[in-house]
Amino acid sequence: MKSKFTPAIIVHGGGGRIRAEELPQRLDGCKDAALAGWGIIQQGGSALDAAEAAVIMLEDNPLFNAGTGSTLNSLGQVEMDAAVMEGETLRAGAVAAVQGIKNPIKLARRVMEDGRHLFYAAEGALLFARAIGFAQCDPEALIVETERARWQEKHGTVGCVALDLEGKIAVATSTGGIFNKLPGRVGDSPLIGCGTYANDCGGVSCTGQGEAIIRIVMAKTALDLLKERAEPQAAAHQAIALLAQKTGGAAGLIIIDRQGKVGHARNTERMPVSFILSDGQVHLDS
Amino acid sequence: MKSKFTPAIIVHGGGGRIRAEELPQRLDGCKDAALAGWGIIQQGGSALDAAEAAVIMLEDNPLFNAGTGSTLNSLGQVEMDAAVMEGETLRAGAVAAVQGIKNPIKLARRVMEDGRHLFYAAEGALLFARAIGFAQCDPEALIVETERARWQEKHGTVGCVALDLEGKIAVATSTGGIFNKLPGRVGDSPLIGCGTYANDCGGVSCTGQGEAIIRIVMAKTALDLLKERAEPQAAAHQAIALLAQKTGGAAGLIIIDRQGKVGHARNTERMPVSFILSDGQVHLDS
Repeated sequence: MKSKFTPAIIVHGGGGRIRAEELPQRLDGCKDAALAGWGIIQQGGSALDAAEAAVIMLEDNPLFNAGTGSTLNSLGQVEMDAAVMEGETLRAGAVAAVQGIKNPIKLARRVMEDGRHLFYAAEGALLFARAIGFAQCDPEALIVETERARWQEKHGTVGCVALDLEGKIAVATSTGGIFNKLPGRVGDSPLIGCGTYANDCGGVSCTGQGEAIIRIVMAKTALDLLKERAEPQAAAHQAIALLAQKTGGAAGLIIIDRQGKVGHARNTERMPVSFILSDGQVHLDS
Repeated sequence: MKSKFTPAIIVHGGGGRIRAEELPQRLDGCKDAALAGWGIIQQGGSALDAAEAAVIMLEDNPLFNAGTGSTLNSLGQVEMDAAVMEGETLRAGAVAAVQGIKNPIKLARRVMEDGRHLFYAAEGALLFARAIGFAQCDPEALIVETERARWQEKHGTVGCVALDLEGKIAVATSTGGIFNKLPGRVGDSPLIGCGTYANDCGGVSCTGQGEAIIRIVMAKTALDLLKERAEPQAAAHQAIALLAQKTGGAAGLIIIDRQGKVGHARNTERMPVSFILSDGQVHLDS
Protein backbone atom coordinates (compact mmCIF):
# COMPACT_ATOMS: atom_id res chain seq x y z
CA MET A 1 0.00 0.00 0.00
CA LYS A 2 1.35 3.35 -0.97
CA SER A 3 1.27 6.16 1.56
CA LYS A 4 -0.35 9.39 0.53
CA PHE A 5 2.56 11.17 2.19
CA THR A 6 5.99 11.62 0.69
CA PRO A 7 8.51 10.70 3.37
CA ALA A 8 11.87 12.40 3.74
CA ILE A 9 14.74 12.69 6.18
CA ILE A 10 17.59 15.15 6.51
CA VAL A 11 20.52 15.08 8.90
CA HIS A 12 23.23 17.59 9.70
CA GLY A 13 26.55 17.03 11.42
CA GLY A 14 27.14 20.58 12.60
CA GLY A 15 28.14 23.87 11.05
CA GLY A 16 31.63 25.30 11.28
CA ARG A 17 35.15 24.96 9.99
CA ILE A 18 36.00 21.37 9.11
CA ARG A 19 39.37 20.27 7.78
CA ALA A 20 39.10 18.95 4.23
CA GLU A 21 40.57 15.58 5.20
CA GLU A 22 37.90 15.11 7.89
CA LEU A 23 34.96 15.92 5.66
CA PRO A 24 34.47 12.52 3.94
CA GLN A 25 34.25 10.74 7.31
CA ARG A 26 31.72 13.24 8.57
CA LEU A 27 29.62 12.93 5.43
CA ASP A 28 29.73 9.16 5.89
CA GLY A 29 28.53 9.60 9.46
CA CYS A 30 25.64 11.78 8.31
CA LYS A 31 24.77 9.30 5.59
CA ASP A 32 24.71 6.38 8.03
CA ALA A 33 22.48 8.37 10.37
CA ALA A 34 20.10 9.34 7.59
CA LEU A 35 19.91 5.71 6.44
CA ALA A 36 19.20 4.52 9.98
CA GLY A 37 16.26 6.91 10.24
CA TRP A 38 15.11 6.14 6.71
CA GLY A 39 14.98 2.42 7.47
CA ILE A 40 12.60 3.11 10.32
CA ILE A 41 10.36 5.28 8.17
CA GLN A 42 10.29 2.69 5.38
CA GLN A 43 9.07 0.10 7.87
CA GLY A 44 6.20 2.37 8.81
CA GLY A 45 7.92 3.74 11.92
CA SER A 46 7.32 7.23 13.21
CA ALA A 47 9.23 10.37 12.29
CA LEU A 48 9.99 10.67 16.00
CA ASP A 49 11.62 7.23 16.15
CA ALA A 50 13.51 7.99 12.93
CA ALA A 51 14.83 11.36 14.07
CA GLU A 52 15.84 9.94 17.44
CA ALA A 53 17.61 6.95 15.84
CA ALA A 54 19.55 9.21 13.46
CA VAL A 55 20.68 11.46 16.28
CA ILE A 56 21.65 8.51 18.50
CA MET A 57 23.99 7.34 15.72
CA LEU A 58 25.58 10.77 15.57
CA GLU A 59 25.82 11.03 19.37
CA ASP A 60 27.59 7.65 19.43
CA ASN A 61 30.00 8.65 16.64
CA PRO A 62 32.95 10.40 18.31
CA LEU A 63 33.56 12.55 15.23
CA PHE A 64 30.52 14.66 16.08
CA ASN A 65 30.03 17.17 18.86
CA ALA A 66 27.20 15.41 20.68
CA GLY A 67 27.12 12.53 23.14
CA THR A 68 30.43 10.62 23.00
CA GLY A 69 33.11 12.93 21.65
CA SER A 70 31.45 16.15 22.80
CA THR A 71 33.63 19.21 23.17
CA LEU A 72 34.86 20.10 26.66
CA ASN A 73 33.71 23.06 28.74
CA SER A 74 36.05 25.40 30.61
CA LEU A 75 36.34 22.88 33.44
CA GLY A 76 37.26 20.08 31.05
CA GLN A 77 33.85 18.41 31.37
CA VAL A 78 31.34 17.22 28.81
CA GLU A 79 28.02 19.04 29.33
CA MET A 80 25.32 18.41 26.75
CA ASP A 81 22.01 19.85 25.50
CA ALA A 82 19.29 18.09 23.47
CA ALA A 83 15.68 18.46 22.40
CA VAL A 84 13.01 16.61 20.47
CA MET A 85 9.76 17.95 19.09
CA GLU A 86 6.77 16.53 17.19
CA GLY A 87 5.15 18.83 14.66
CA GLU A 88 1.60 17.54 14.75
CA THR A 89 1.11 17.61 18.50
CA LEU A 90 3.66 20.32 19.38
CA ARG A 91 4.87 17.97 22.09
CA ALA A 92 8.49 18.54 23.02
CA GLY A 93 11.13 17.53 25.52
CA ALA A 94 14.50 19.04 26.30
CA VAL A 95 17.48 18.77 28.61
CA ALA A 96 20.35 21.20 29.08
CA ALA A 97 23.78 21.11 30.70
CA VAL A 98 23.58 17.39 31.48
CA GLN A 99 26.57 15.23 32.35
CA GLY A 100 26.94 11.46 32.37
CA ILE A 101 24.15 10.76 29.91
CA LYS A 102 25.32 8.63 26.98
CA ASN A 103 22.45 9.70 24.71
CA PRO A 104 20.92 13.01 25.76
CA ILE A 105 18.40 12.78 22.91
CA LYS A 106 16.90 9.69 24.55
CA LEU A 107 16.54 11.56 27.83
CA ALA A 108 14.90 14.51 26.01
CA ARG A 109 12.40 12.09 24.53
CA ARG A 110 11.67 10.60 27.94
CA VAL A 111 11.04 14.13 29.23
CA MET A 112 8.53 14.63 26.43
CA GLU A 113 6.81 11.33 27.06
CA ASP A 114 6.71 11.81 30.81
CA GLY A 115 4.90 15.07 30.12
CA ARG A 116 5.07 16.64 33.60
CA HIS A 117 7.47 19.30 32.42
CA LEU A 118 9.05 20.09 29.06
CA PHE A 119 12.58 21.12 29.97
CA TYR A 120 15.02 20.16 32.74
CA ALA A 121 18.45 21.62 33.35
CA ALA A 122 21.65 20.29 34.86
CA GLU A 123 21.38 18.32 38.13
CA GLY A 124 17.58 18.44 37.98
CA ALA A 125 17.69 16.61 34.64
CA LEU A 126 19.81 13.90 36.29
CA LEU A 127 17.38 13.65 39.21
CA PHE A 128 14.62 13.17 36.65
CA ALA A 129 16.70 10.50 34.89
CA ARG A 130 17.25 8.67 38.17
CA ALA A 131 13.58 8.91 39.11
CA ILE A 132 12.44 7.30 35.85
CA GLY A 133 15.20 4.67 35.91
CA PHE A 134 17.12 6.11 32.97
CA ALA A 135 20.69 4.80 32.96
CA GLN A 136 23.50 7.22 33.67
CA CYS A 137 27.13 6.67 32.71
CA ASP A 138 30.46 7.87 34.00
CA PRO A 139 30.79 11.47 32.73
CA GLU A 140 34.40 10.67 31.83
CA ALA A 141 33.25 7.89 29.50
CA LEU A 142 32.02 10.48 27.01
CA ILE A 143 35.40 12.19 26.75
CA VAL A 144 37.40 11.17 23.72
CA GLU A 145 41.17 11.49 24.02
CA THR A 146 41.38 13.62 20.88
CA GLU A 147 39.03 16.11 22.53
CA ARG A 148 41.17 16.30 25.63
CA ALA A 149 44.18 16.99 23.44
CA ARG A 150 42.39 19.38 21.12
CA TRP A 151 42.98 23.02 21.62
CA GLN A 152 40.90 24.49 18.85
CA GLU A 153 37.13 24.72 19.06
CA LYS A 154 35.11 21.70 18.08
CA HIS A 155 32.17 22.97 16.14
CA GLY A 156 28.65 22.02 15.76
CA THR A 157 25.69 20.15 16.85
CA VAL A 158 23.90 17.25 15.23
CA GLY A 159 20.31 17.22 14.14
CA CYS A 160 17.67 15.42 12.15
CA VAL A 161 14.29 16.31 10.71
CA ALA A 162 12.10 13.43 9.54
CA LEU A 163 8.72 13.13 7.81
CA ASP A 164 7.08 9.74 8.06
CA LEU A 165 4.54 7.83 5.95
CA GLU A 166 1.70 9.23 8.06
CA GLY A 167 2.76 12.79 7.29
CA LYS A 168 4.11 13.40 10.77
CA ILE A 169 7.20 15.50 11.28
CA ALA A 170 9.71 15.26 14.11
CA VAL A 171 12.96 17.04 14.92
CA ALA A 172 15.84 15.95 17.14
CA THR A 173 18.89 18.07 17.97
CA SER A 174 21.82 17.22 20.25
CA THR A 175 25.08 18.97 21.09
CA GLY A 176 28.08 19.24 23.33
CA GLY A 177 27.85 23.01 22.93
CA ILE A 178 30.85 25.18 22.23
CA PHE A 179 34.43 24.49 23.14
CA ASN A 180 35.58 25.98 26.44
CA LYS A 181 32.07 27.19 27.32
CA LEU A 182 31.43 28.16 30.90
CA PRO A 183 29.65 25.48 32.98
CA GLY A 184 25.87 25.72 32.82
CA ARG A 185 25.88 27.54 29.48
CA VAL A 186 22.76 26.65 27.52
CA GLY A 187 22.86 27.08 23.75
CA ASP A 188 20.11 27.13 21.14
CA SER A 189 19.79 23.37 20.63
CA PRO A 190 17.48 22.54 23.58
CA LEU A 191 15.47 25.75 23.25
CA ILE A 192 12.16 25.15 21.52
CA GLY A 193 11.82 27.71 18.72
CA CYS A 194 15.54 28.51 18.66
CA GLY A 195 17.57 25.41 17.72
CA THR A 196 14.67 22.97 17.42
CA TYR A 197 11.10 23.45 16.21
CA ALA A 198 8.34 21.54 14.47
CA ASN A 199 4.73 22.44 13.75
CA ASP A 200 2.05 21.69 11.16
CA CYS A 201 4.16 23.32 8.40
CA GLY A 202 7.45 21.51 8.88
CA GLY A 203 10.46 20.97 11.10
CA VAL A 204 13.84 22.65 11.57
CA SER A 205 17.11 21.83 13.36
CA CYS A 206 19.86 24.44 13.67
CA THR A 207 23.60 24.49 14.33
CA GLY A 208 26.09 27.30 14.81
CA GLN A 209 26.53 30.24 17.13
CA GLY A 210 23.83 29.53 19.69
CA GLU A 211 23.82 32.97 21.26
CA ALA A 212 22.98 34.48 17.86
CA ILE A 213 20.46 31.81 16.85
CA ILE A 214 18.54 32.37 20.10
CA ARG A 215 18.18 36.10 19.51
CA ILE A 216 16.20 35.60 16.29
CA VAL A 217 14.47 32.39 17.48
CA MET A 218 15.74 30.91 14.26
CA ALA A 219 13.99 27.52 13.95
CA LYS A 220 10.51 29.01 14.45
CA THR A 221 11.44 31.97 12.23
CA ALA A 222 12.43 29.59 9.41
CA LEU A 223 9.07 27.79 9.69
CA ASP A 224 7.23 31.12 9.62
CA LEU A 225 9.14 31.97 6.44
CA LEU A 226 8.24 28.53 5.07
CA LYS A 227 4.57 29.29 5.74
CA GLU A 228 4.88 32.50 3.72
CA ARG A 229 7.04 31.14 0.93
CA ALA A 230 6.05 27.46 0.76
CA GLU A 231 9.61 26.73 -0.36
CA PRO A 232 11.91 25.09 2.20
CA GLN A 233 15.12 25.98 0.41
CA ALA A 234 14.12 29.65 0.15
CA ALA A 235 13.03 29.67 3.80
CA ALA A 236 16.36 28.17 4.86
CA HIS A 237 18.38 30.79 2.96
CA GLN A 238 16.19 33.61 4.17
CA ALA A 239 16.49 32.56 7.81
CA ILE A 240 20.29 32.44 7.56
CA ALA A 241 20.32 35.83 5.81
CA LEU A 242 18.17 37.26 8.59
CA LEU A 243 20.52 35.85 11.22
CA ALA A 244 23.52 37.47 9.52
CA GLN A 245 21.69 40.76 9.13
CA LYS A 246 20.29 40.99 12.65
CA THR A 247 23.11 39.47 14.66
CA GLY A 248 26.17 39.03 12.45
CA GLY A 249 26.18 35.40 13.57
CA ALA A 250 27.12 32.24 11.69
CA ALA A 251 24.90 29.17 11.59
CA GLY A 252 23.26 26.52 9.48
CA LEU A 253 19.89 24.82 9.44
CA ILE A 254 18.03 21.90 7.90
CA ILE A 255 14.31 21.94 7.13
CA ILE A 256 11.56 19.64 5.82
CA ASP A 257 8.04 20.70 4.87
CA ARG A 258 4.84 18.64 4.97
CA GLN A 259 5.23 17.75 1.28
CA GLY A 260 8.59 16.12 1.90
CA LYS A 261 10.63 18.90 0.33
CA VAL A 262 13.90 19.57 2.10
CA GLY A 263 16.16 22.58 2.40
CA HIS A 264 19.45 23.43 4.04
CA ALA A 265 21.51 26.58 4.24
CA ARG A 266 24.53 27.89 6.13
CA ASN A 267 26.83 30.85 6.34
CA THR A 268 29.42 28.78 8.19
CA GLU A 269 32.31 27.40 6.16
CA ARG A 270 30.90 23.89 6.16
CA MET A 271 27.90 21.88 7.29
CA PRO A 272 27.88 18.20 6.36
CA VAL A 273 24.35 17.22 5.38
CA SER A 274 22.73 14.03 4.18
CA PHE A 275 19.15 13.73 3.03
CA ILE A 276 16.96 11.06 1.51
CA LEU A 277 13.86 11.84 -0.55
CA SER A 278 10.99 9.56 -1.49
CA ASP A 279 12.98 7.84 -4.27
CA GLY A 280 15.31 6.50 -1.57
CA GLN A 281 18.41 8.10 -3.06
CA VAL A 282 20.93 9.39 -0.54
CA HIS A 283 22.17 12.93 -1.16
CA LEU A 284 25.23 14.47 0.44
CA ASP A 285 26.24 18.10 0.67
CA SER A 286 28.57 20.21 2.75
CA MET B 1 12.64 69.10 25.30
CA LYS B 2 9.96 66.78 24.16
CA SER B 3 10.92 63.31 23.00
CA LYS B 4 9.69 62.21 19.62
CA PHE B 5 8.86 58.87 21.19
CA THR B 6 5.83 58.12 23.31
CA PRO B 7 7.01 56.25 26.39
CA ALA B 8 4.98 53.55 28.09
CA ILE B 9 5.36 50.83 30.67
CA ILE B 10 3.27 47.78 31.52
CA VAL B 11 3.70 45.32 34.37
CA HIS B 12 2.02 42.03 35.18
CA GLY B 13 1.95 40.16 38.45
CA GLY B 14 1.22 36.71 37.08
CA GLY B 15 -1.73 34.89 35.60
CA GLY B 16 -3.80 32.44 37.55
CA ARG B 17 -6.44 32.07 40.20
CA ILE B 18 -6.22 34.85 42.78
CA ARG B 19 -8.52 35.11 45.78
CA ALA B 20 -10.65 38.25 45.57
CA GLU B 21 -9.36 39.53 48.90
CA GLU B 22 -5.75 39.29 47.68
CA LEU B 23 -6.34 41.15 44.44
CA PRO B 24 -6.15 44.77 45.70
CA GLN B 25 -2.72 44.17 47.28
CA ARG B 26 -1.44 42.59 44.11
CA LEU B 27 -2.73 45.45 42.00
CA ASP B 28 -0.99 47.84 44.38
CA GLY B 29 2.23 45.89 43.96
CA CYS B 30 1.93 46.10 40.18
CA LYS B 31 1.19 49.80 40.37
CA ASP B 32 4.23 50.47 42.55
CA ALA B 33 6.41 48.51 40.15
CA ALA B 34 5.04 50.37 37.12
CA LEU B 35 5.62 53.70 38.87
CA ALA B 36 9.19 52.75 39.76
CA GLY B 37 9.95 52.00 36.13
CA TRP B 38 8.05 55.06 34.94
CA GLY B 39 10.11 57.33 37.17
CA ILE B 40 13.27 56.07 35.52
CA ILE B 41 11.89 56.61 32.03
CA GLN B 42 10.71 60.13 32.91
CA GLN B 43 14.23 61.00 34.01
CA GLY B 44 15.54 59.89 30.63
CA GLY B 45 16.61 56.46 31.84
CA SER B 46 16.60 53.42 29.59
CA ALA B 47 13.76 50.98 29.04
CA LEU B 48 16.15 48.30 30.24
CA ASP B 49 16.74 50.05 33.57
CA ALA B 50 13.02 50.69 33.91
CA ALA B 51 11.97 47.11 33.21
CA GLU B 52 14.65 45.76 35.54
CA ALA B 53 13.64 48.16 38.35
CA ALA B 54 9.96 47.22 38.03
CA VAL B 55 10.75 43.52 38.19
CA ILE B 56 13.10 43.97 41.14
CA MET B 57 10.22 45.55 43.08
CA LEU B 58 8.02 42.57 42.26
CA GLU B 59 10.77 40.08 43.11
CA ASP B 60 11.21 41.78 46.49
CA ASN B 61 7.46 41.79 47.18
CA PRO B 62 6.64 38.44 48.83
CA LEU B 63 3.12 38.49 47.37
CA PHE B 64 4.48 37.63 43.94
CA ASN B 65 5.95 34.38 42.68
CA ALA B 66 9.45 35.65 41.89
CA GLY B 67 12.50 36.30 44.07
CA THR B 68 11.47 36.49 47.73
CA GLY B 69 8.18 34.61 48.16
CA SER B 70 8.70 32.27 45.23
CA THR B 71 6.76 29.04 45.22
CA LEU B 72 8.53 25.89 46.38
CA ASN B 73 9.60 22.98 44.21
CA SER B 74 9.01 19.32 45.05
CA LEU B 75 12.04 19.34 47.37
CA GLY B 76 10.77 22.41 49.22
CA GLN B 77 13.33 24.70 47.61
CA VAL B 78 13.03 28.01 45.79
CA GLU B 79 14.42 27.66 42.24
CA MET B 80 13.99 30.64 39.95
CA ASP B 81 14.12 31.60 36.27
CA ALA B 82 14.56 35.08 34.76
CA ALA B 83 15.37 36.81 31.48
CA VAL B 84 15.89 40.30 30.08
CA MET B 85 15.94 41.37 26.46
CA GLU B 86 16.47 44.63 24.56
CA GLY B 87 14.44 45.10 21.39
CA GLU B 88 16.77 47.29 19.39
CA THR B 89 19.91 45.21 19.78
CA LEU B 90 18.30 41.80 20.35
CA ARG B 91 20.71 41.42 23.26
CA ALA B 92 19.41 39.11 25.96
CA GLY B 93 20.43 37.36 29.14
CA ALA B 94 18.79 34.54 31.05
CA VAL B 95 19.21 32.25 34.03
CA ALA B 96 17.23 29.16 34.94
CA ALA B 97 16.83 26.97 38.01
CA VAL B 98 18.94 29.25 40.22
CA GLN B 99 18.92 29.15 44.00
CA GLY B 100 20.18 31.71 46.50
CA ILE B 101 19.92 34.72 44.21
CA LYS B 102 17.84 37.51 45.74
CA ASN B 103 17.11 39.18 42.40
CA PRO B 104 17.44 36.75 39.49
CA ILE B 105 16.55 39.54 37.05
CA LYS B 106 19.76 41.36 38.04
CA LEU B 107 21.78 38.24 37.36
CA ALA B 108 20.08 37.81 33.96
CA ARG B 109 21.07 41.36 33.12
CA ARG B 110 24.66 40.71 34.15
CA VAL B 111 24.66 37.65 31.86
CA MET B 112 23.52 39.90 29.01
CA GLU B 113 26.12 42.53 29.74
CA ASP B 114 28.91 40.03 30.19
CA GLY B 115 28.06 38.78 26.71
CA ARG B 116 30.08 35.56 26.66
CA HIS B 117 26.96 33.44 26.73
CA LEU B 118 23.26 34.23 26.78
CA PHE B 119 21.83 31.61 29.12
CA TYR B 120 23.13 29.76 32.18
CA ALA B 121 21.33 27.06 34.11
CA ALA B 122 21.45 25.92 37.72
CA GLU B 123 24.85 25.52 39.37
CA GLY B 124 26.59 26.96 36.30
CA ALA B 125 24.64 30.19 36.75
CA LEU B 126 25.88 30.35 40.34
CA LEU B 127 29.47 29.74 39.22
CA PHE B 128 29.02 32.64 36.80
CA ALA B 129 27.62 34.79 39.62
CA ARG B 130 30.60 33.97 41.84
CA ALA B 131 33.07 34.64 39.03
CA ILE B 132 31.69 38.13 38.41
CA GLY B 133 31.37 38.94 42.11
CA PHE B 134 27.57 38.89 42.12
CA ALA B 135 26.28 38.48 45.67
CA GLN B 136 24.50 35.25 46.59
CA CYS B 137 22.17 34.83 49.54
CA ASP B 138 21.06 31.97 51.72
CA PRO B 139 18.55 30.03 49.59
CA GLU B 140 16.35 29.77 52.69
CA ALA B 141 16.15 33.56 52.92
CA LEU B 142 13.85 33.63 49.89
CA ILE B 143 11.32 31.28 51.46
CA VAL B 144 8.34 33.03 52.99
CA GLU B 145 6.58 31.19 55.79
CA THR B 146 3.22 31.43 54.04
CA GLU B 147 4.74 29.57 51.08
CA ARG B 148 6.02 26.81 53.30
CA ALA B 149 2.54 26.45 54.75
CA ARG B 150 0.73 26.81 51.46
CA TRP B 151 -0.52 23.66 49.88
CA GLN B 152 -2.21 24.98 46.79
CA GLU B 153 -0.29 26.15 43.78
CA LYS B 154 1.10 29.66 43.79
CA HIS B 155 0.58 31.02 40.33
CA GLY B 156 2.38 33.26 38.09
CA THR B 157 5.41 35.09 37.12
CA VAL B 158 6.15 38.78 37.08
CA GLY B 159 7.08 40.80 34.06
CA CYS B 160 7.52 44.26 32.63
CA VAL B 161 7.75 45.74 29.16
CA ALA B 162 9.01 49.33 28.89
CA LEU B 163 9.46 51.83 26.06
CA ASP B 164 11.76 54.74 26.83
CA LEU B 165 12.07 58.30 25.52
CA GLU B 166 14.60 57.14 22.93
CA GLY B 167 12.15 54.64 21.51
CA LYS B 168 13.96 51.64 22.92
CA ILE B 169 12.03 48.67 24.22
CA ALA B 170 13.07 46.22 26.93
CA VAL B 171 11.42 43.25 28.60
CA ALA B 172 12.14 41.64 31.96
CA THR B 173 10.48 38.47 33.27
CA SER B 174 11.12 36.63 36.55
CA THR B 175 9.49 33.66 38.23
CA GLY B 176 9.64 31.03 40.88
CA GLY B 177 8.03 28.63 38.42
CA ILE B 178 5.16 26.36 39.32
CA PHE B 179 4.35 24.96 42.73
CA ASN B 180 5.79 21.53 43.46
CA LYS B 181 7.75 21.49 40.18
CA LEU B 182 10.51 18.93 39.88
CA PRO B 183 14.02 20.28 40.53
CA GLY B 184 15.68 21.65 37.40
CA ARG B 185 12.40 22.29 35.62
CA VAL B 186 12.75 25.27 33.29
CA GLY B 187 9.60 27.14 32.30
CA ASP B 188 8.92 29.67 29.57
CA SER B 189 10.10 32.80 31.42
CA PRO B 190 13.86 32.52 30.74
CA LEU B 191 13.38 31.18 27.22
CA ILE B 192 13.92 33.88 24.62
CA GLY B 193 10.94 33.82 22.26
CA CYS B 194 8.73 31.87 24.68
CA GLY B 195 8.15 33.88 27.88
CA THR B 196 10.29 36.89 26.98
CA TYR B 197 10.93 38.61 23.65
CA ALA B 198 11.67 42.04 22.23
CA ASN B 199 12.56 43.19 18.74
CA ASP B 200 12.15 46.26 16.54
CA CYS B 201 8.34 45.90 16.63
CA GLY B 202 7.77 45.69 20.38
CA GLY B 203 8.19 43.63 23.51
CA VAL B 204 6.25 40.87 25.29
CA SER B 205 6.34 39.17 28.69
CA CYS B 206 4.22 36.08 29.37
CA THR B 207 2.86 34.23 32.40
CA GLY B 208 0.93 31.01 32.78
CA GLN B 209 1.42 27.37 31.90
CA GLY B 210 5.03 27.42 30.76
CA GLU B 211 4.97 24.03 29.07
CA ALA B 212 2.15 25.25 26.80
CA ILE B 213 3.63 28.71 26.19
CA ILE B 214 6.91 27.14 25.05
CA ARG B 215 5.20 24.95 22.47
CA ILE B 216 3.87 27.92 20.52
CA VAL B 217 6.88 30.19 21.29
CA MET B 218 4.28 32.67 22.48
CA ALA B 219 6.20 35.93 23.04
CA LYS B 220 7.74 35.89 19.56
CA THR B 221 4.44 34.72 18.08
CA ALA B 222 2.65 37.71 19.64
CA LEU B 223 5.21 40.09 18.12
CA ASP B 224 4.81 38.46 14.72
CA LEU B 225 1.05 38.99 15.04
CA LEU B 226 1.73 42.59 16.05
CA LYS B 227 3.79 43.05 12.89
CA GLU B 228 0.85 41.81 10.80
CA ARG B 229 -1.89 43.62 12.70
CA ALA B 230 -0.14 46.71 14.06
CA GLU B 231 -2.50 46.56 17.02
CA PRO B 232 -1.04 45.35 20.33
CA GLN B 233 -4.36 44.54 21.92
CA ALA B 234 -5.45 42.45 18.95
CA ALA B 235 -2.08 40.72 18.85
CA ALA B 236 -2.34 39.90 22.57
CA HIS B 237 -5.80 38.39 22.20
CA GLN B 238 -4.83 36.48 19.09
CA ALA B 239 -1.73 34.98 20.72
CA ILE B 240 -3.78 33.77 23.70
CA ALA B 241 -6.44 32.36 21.36
CA LEU B 242 -3.74 30.51 19.43
CA LEU B 243 -2.34 29.10 22.67
CA ALA B 244 -5.76 27.81 23.69
CA GLN B 245 -6.41 26.36 20.25
CA LYS B 246 -3.04 24.66 19.76
CA THR B 247 -2.30 23.50 23.30
CA GLY B 248 -5.38 23.96 25.49
CA GLY B 249 -3.14 25.91 27.85
CA ALA B 250 -3.89 28.92 30.03
CA ALA B 251 -1.71 32.01 30.08
CA GLY B 252 -1.54 35.77 29.90
CA LEU B 253 0.75 38.28 28.27
CA ILE B 254 1.57 41.98 28.20
CA ILE B 255 2.82 43.81 25.11
CA ILE B 256 4.02 47.27 24.03
CA ASP B 257 4.63 48.39 20.46
CA ARG B 258 7.09 51.02 19.19
CA GLN B 259 4.35 53.67 19.23
CA GLY B 260 3.77 53.22 22.95
CA LYS B 261 0.49 51.37 22.57
CA VAL B 262 -0.02 48.61 25.11
CA GLY B 263 -2.05 45.42 25.16
CA HIS B 264 -2.71 42.61 27.58
CA ALA B 265 -4.76 39.45 27.37
CA ARG B 266 -5.30 36.28 29.37
CA ASN B 267 -7.38 33.15 29.47
CA THR B 268 -6.46 32.58 33.11
CA GLU B 269 -8.96 33.65 35.76
CA ARG B 270 -6.94 36.71 36.71
CA MET B 271 -3.80 38.61 35.80
CA PRO B 272 -3.11 41.81 37.74
CA VAL B 273 -1.76 44.41 35.34
CA SER B 274 -0.69 48.01 35.70
CA PHE B 275 0.31 50.28 32.82
CA ILE B 276 1.21 53.90 32.37
CA LEU B 277 0.85 55.69 29.05
CA SER B 278 2.40 58.99 27.95
CA ASP B 279 -0.10 61.08 29.92
CA GLY B 280 1.35 59.59 33.11
CA GLN B 281 -1.96 58.13 34.26
CA VAL B 282 -1.74 54.78 36.02
CA HIS B 283 -4.18 52.15 34.77
CA LEU B 284 -5.03 48.94 36.59
CA ASP B 285 -6.71 45.83 35.30
CA SER B 286 -7.05 42.22 36.33
